[in-house]
Amino acid sequence: MDLLSALSLGELALSFSRVPLFPVFDLSYFIVSILYLKYEPGAVELSRRHPVASWLCAMLHCFGSYILADLLLGEPLIDYFSNNSSVLLASAVWYLIFFCPLDLFYKCVSFLPVKLIFVAMKEVVRVRKIAVGIHHAHHHYHHGWFIMIATGWVKGSGVALMSNLEQLLRGVWKPETNEFLHMSFPTKASLYGAILFTLQQTRWLPVSKASLIFIFTMFMVSCKVFLTATHSHNSPFDVLEGYICPVLFGAAWGGDHHHDSHSASHGGSHGGGPGAQHSVLPAKSKEELSEGSRKKKTKKAD
Amino acid sequence: MDLLSALSLGELALSFSRVPLFPVFDLSYFIVSILYLKYEPGAVELSRRHPVASWLCAMLHCFGSYILADLLLGEPLIDYFSNNSSVLLASAVWYLIFFCPLDLFYKCVSFLPVKLIFVAMKEVVRVRKIAVGIHHAHHHYHHGWFIMIATGWVKGSGVALMSNLEQLLRGVWKPETNEFLHMSFPTKASLYGAILFTLQQTRWLPVSKASLIFIFTMFMVSCKVFLTATHSHNSPFDVLEGYICPVLFGAAWGGDHHHDSHSASHGGSHGGGPGAQHSVLPAKSKEELSEGSRKKKTKKAD
Amino acid sequence: MDLLSALSLGELALSFSRVPLFPVFDLSYFIVSILYLKYEPGAVELSRRHPVASWLCAMLHCFGSYILADLLLGEPLIDYFSNNSSVLLASAVWYLIFFCPLDLFYKCVSFLPVKLIFVAMKEVVRVRKIAVGIHHAHHHYHHGWFIMIATGWVKGSGVALMSNLEQLLRGVWKPETNEFLHMSFPTKASLYGAILFTLQQTRWLPVSKASLIFIFTMFMVSCKVFLTATHSHNSPFDVLEGYICPVLFGAAWGGDHHHDSHSASHGGSHGGGPGAQHSVLPAKSKEELSEGSRKKKTKKAD
Repeated sequence: MDLLSALSLGELALSFSRVPLFPVFDLSYFIVSILYLKYEPGAVELSRRHPVASWLCAMLHCFGSYILADLLLGEPLIDYFSNNSSVLLASAVWYLIFFCPLDLFYKCVSFLPVKLIFVAMKEVVRVRKIAVGIHHAHHHYHHGWFIMIATGWVKGSGVALMSNLEQLLRGVWKPETNEFLHMSFPTKASLYGAILFTLQQTRWLPVSKASLIFIFTMFMVSCKVFLTATHSHNSPFDVLEGYICPVLFGAAWGGDHHHDSHSASHGGSHGGGPGAQHSVLPAKSKEELSEGSRKKKTKKAD
Repeated sequence: MDLLSALSLGELALSFSRVPLFPVFDLSYFIVSILYLKYEPGAVELSRRHPVASWLCAMLHCFGSYILADLLLGEPLIDYFSNNSSVLLASAVWYLIFFCPLDLFYKCVSFLPVKLIFVAMKEVVRVRKIAVGIHHAHHHYHHGWFIMIATGWVKGSGVALMSNLEQLLRGVWKPETNEFLHMSFPTKASLYGAILFTLQQTRWLPVSKASLIFIFTMFMVSCKVFLTATHSHNSPFDVLEGYICPVLFGAAWGGDHHHDSHSASHGGSHGGGPGAQHSVLPAKSKEELSEGSRKKKTKKAD
Repeated sequence: MDLLSALSLGELALSFSRVPLFPVFDLSYFIVSILYLKYEPGAVELSRRHPVASWLCAMLHCFGSYILADLLLGEPLIDYFSNNSSVLLASAVWYLIFFCPLDLFYKCVSFLPVKLIFVAMKEVVRVRKIAVGIHHAHHHYHHGWFIMIATGWVKGSGVALMSNLEQLLRGVWKPETNEFLHMSFPTKASLYGAILFTLQQTRWLPVSKASLIFIFTMFMVSCKVFLTATHSHNSPFDVLEGYICPVLFGAAWGGDHHHDSHSASHGGSHGGGPGAQHSVLPAKSKEELSEGSRKKKTKKAD
């Protein structure tokens, strides 16, 4: 703590928490979000043939967190769309990423070093959104712990939590999976972050909000940049969950193990909960097997 | 009416309508609701591998009626989650039912005599919810008949009316059916109850609210306990609907006939609308036939 | 403009914009909407076997625009259902169209000359709804351009924008398409109309609201009557979009080309964007081909 005060962390955190997000950080958020939309299979054809649907998807990617939070808190769903400048900025990013001549803009922003900067800035926005969301929920429900956590979570996760709906808009339907079943790292981190910020807001965590924002932002930025740089889908929570979940729930939290099924079939090579997976796999593989064999047999019949 | 006054039904009903629901009756509601969740195929594996999704499903089962009613009336969707004690109680029930060592809690509460008591108490909560929901809607819309009925209905039916969404959360998708197409007994009873309570609220039914709550609770408790004890899916409304629906709609209300297709194939053995089914079946069986023959042919090809 | 003033268009438009919609125009709206519901495959069987689901679908067809607009603006979803007379009128129309003896009512209203009159009157209601929706949104968000356009759009399009949900209610599920992907003429026209009315509301379009209502109604009525009379699914916007979309988005707006795939396979015979389609078709036809060949092979195997 001595070192921290020597660095005057408090002041640094305070000034950091006051940096305005619009337009630079928001721009990064939009760029990375719409970049991920472009990575989705079929997204480019969609933008060519159905620009309106593609634009709506882009808006969901950029403002999904506001829409979900407004839904939960009973406010107008399109409330945030009254920020014309934000919507115009997001629309411009959408247009540039999808329709820029020679794909120039896309090539620039998806160049890894550039992308890493944007990814880092996106996490800054994410953490700030969680903090603001919980503050907002706390304003309405002073003792609504669950409401605060839920609001913070949806503000942090955004479109991921309504991925089924977003896919449906693009004509894609994958009911067998959703973000609640297979949580990605940002979704999980948002949940844990929401819990931390709720504890801070209700004074159970003896730390200033500015410091928490600063520390959690540093954590998120370093994790996300590392994961993006290494193209990894592992999550730093895997180890921890591997030890806690078997105790609490009698099995490992299967989210990510399922997500990259290669490592799961290697017997949990990324250090997840040992033993727990064995009880999980049969149920799943049986399903897959029967599905697979059905397909194979149909093919044979062909 | 003489007998009733001799029994001082009025006073009994009044004191009955004032019994607080929290925590004993609410507890029963949570237990039965989450018990039904555990009966769903795949629910146990889900709880092992995806505890967050399982917990969310459990919350939908316990508080779905509040969420739907809030959605209809434009209030915050998670408003009811500000009742921390209710949510904690429901979470504890969820944990005990799914993760109790040796499945002890589950075995206890699913033991038929015990379960019947909980089922009876759940119906008490259901009827009270309908009454409160209609009172609440009446407060907002004094002449909104349809709004009152709708609010009472969703308050009584709860998660059943959003079963598709709840299944989707668990990665299950059955678009070909939903609660509106194949209404279960509680859903239908909630609808009829909502109509009765709306008539009472708008003074078309000359009976006190306390008496109506008492009488309708007795009806629901006896029906539901009987149906649960006999593992029956028939509905006491079948006979009535069998006579009214052909007159009004030219065919029997097919909900339950479809639900237990065995009795339907026996030619309506449970006394449903005679004759009406013949006009209904061909359309359905043709569908099923083509579906079935397709499957059979695929199998043959294997 | 000289001619218009000679016709005293202003006064005509003003008095036209003051014609009350209830009950005659609303009745036409309900009739045409529920007529389209009856055209859906399976709708008649649904009404016989599941009257409640059928009635709910009919209500969505009649009041979907209000439900969606209320959802967007954070108002109670069933707010409009407090208009008992409207709901009763729509219910009566639903009953007559589906259950009238000898199908008499249906035969009358679907007789082409009669239907054309109703279709024309429905468009009057649609345009008025767009105007009212934008006025309402403007009242809440003075500078919310996007909110005004969105509100006007959903008020004009109605149930079309939630067709997936409406189908799900009937047990039908077609995730591969939706109204955002394949916009019908009324949906597109509502979008363009919403933009025009928003420009008018924010004084960028130097024309009185009454005149705009009048002109746009005339346009919609003539288009829709012509399209209905000729059983055509083409859209008058196709030509315009065929020239603008390739410039803006590098490809023709594929909505309708896909909708009637016959004309698309003829090489864009209705004057759409030349050349653009060639880049679009392969992606689609490949999909269709593989789907088709799979089916054919399965059949062969049978």
